[in-house]
Amino acid sequence: MSSEVGRPTNADAVPAMANWKITLEYDGTDFSGWQIQPNARTVQEELERGLAQITGGSVRVAGAGRTDSGVHAAGQVASVALEKEFRPEALQRSLNGVLPHDVVVLGTEVVPQEFHARFSAHARHYQYTILQRPTALERRFVWNCPYRLNDDLLERCAARIRGEHAFTSFAKFDAETDHDVCRVAEAVWTRNEGRLEFSITANRFLYGMVRALVGTMVDVARGYRPWEDWETILTAKDRRAAGASAPAQGLCLMSIMY
Amino acid sequence: MSSEVGRPTNADAVPAMANWKITLEYDGTDFSGWQIQPNARTVQEELERGLAQITGGSVRVAGAGRTDSGVHAAGQVASVALEKEFRPEALQRSLNGVLPHDVVVLGTEVVPQEFHARFSAHARHYQYTILQRPTALERRFVWNCPYRLNDDLLERCAARIRGEHAFTSFAKFDAETDHDVCRVAEAVWTRNEGRLEFSITANRFLYGMVRALVGTMVDVARGYRPWEDWETILTAKDRRAAGASAPAQGLCLMSIMY
Repeated sequence: MSSEVGRPTNADAVPAMANWKITLEYDGTDFSGWQIQPNARTVQEELERGLAQITGGSVRVAGAGRTDSGVHAAGQVASVALEKEFRPEALQRSLNGVLPHDVVVLGTEVVPQEFHARFSAHARHYQYTILQRPTALERRFVWNCPYRLNDDLLERCAARIRGEHAFTSFAKFDAETDHDVCRVAEAVWTRNEGRLEFSITANRFLYGMVRALVGTMVDVARGYRPWEDWETILTAKDRRAAGASAPAQGLCLMSIMY
Repeated sequence: MSSEVGRPTNADAVPAMANWKITLEYDGTDFSGWQIQPNARTVQEELERGLAQITGGSVRVAGAGRTDSGVHAAGQVASVALEKEFRPEALQRSLNGVLPHDVVVLGTEVVPQEFHARFSAHARHYQYTILQRPTALERRFVWNCPYRLNDDLLERCAARIRGEHAFTSFAKFDAETDHDVCRVAEAVWTRNEGRLEFSITANRFLYGMVRALVGTMVDVARGYRPWEDWETILTAKDRRAAGASAPAQGLCLMSIMY
């Protein structure tokens, strides 16, 4: 394969100061989430440390979505300008060689200078998994929710949040956000015997939103709260109206759309 | 549901000294295998400790298959006579309450006195999973094997071992075994993009057999050894003829047939 002019392929070294898109998978169990913070192990810090190690300079990456403590990712995206030149495959291999086992680089590609992992994203896809029995093999990745759940009520809750709504009732306070409106393109529950998966795609998500949605939908579907409450909660625009958050380990950031 | 005479259901307490069949799932990562041994954490020991805790007496369980250090189970079976009476569901719940998080009881049922987890089994099913890329989420459960593998050669190796053969070349020395003949009912590779699964069902397995088979099949399929070697290895009846064992974490004991 020959490279187009100005469009590097895996065969070419990419000039220094190129802008990179890095796709990541991580097991969130032993992380205090994505975002760097003092005295905590975070994915962003591990990635920046790894990049510093292979480039010899300090770097700051931008992440597409801040995942909470304990939340996993199958397709998180980071963007970063690197001073050193790399071939894309070599960058991936080198990074995987220095990153801890619970973070893996799935892909690296050169992107235009204006690409930003967070601001260029037009949608994010999350999945939440409930297993209705105890499990040893999947215990890090599912919520073992023992209640009998009404599938029809789950679907009605999901249907009600499709489209554009203010999700204030399902958000933790976040100083970085100036409004609470999200456009939900997909919100659907699927059941496969004792496994329930909630798949949700939106242009943006508020802090803690998916876990608060899942926890409250489960409250309704198990009969702890009446169906009518769902409407009341959504329109209350008050986090105290919703139920407890579903546990972090069931949540996974699946992909970012650009 | 009413219970038949002499056939306890979940609604009935089972008399003391009943024989129980316990189906288990475990994450083998932090275990030195199934079988009790000094100064090592084993699944059998955890199960016996849990049973002792809820019955107040010491117990000895029989396991259907001894899994190696690091090998997982989605359907291991143990049998045990319990002095205390239980309802099946209560036994499962109580055990799950005292077992560590990496062992889970999937089911409990009363079986005839002559039932023995190991000797009554007529077949065992194992699965070995290879993922041809690094992974954070599945790192405990797959072998990240980076070689390009020829699917046709994998299938030819698998086809050759179906039926009854002496698997001496693929077995660690085992003082508890008096012959090396196994009847392989199923041996098949399936590929789903970069994920390869080897599924094998046999009346019995020798110690270390599945991992030695997978490791050597991979040697052939990646071109490290010629196809003709497969025949030579199988008929050599010498462990030194085969290749290195595939790593333990890719292997899972799926189910036991009675």
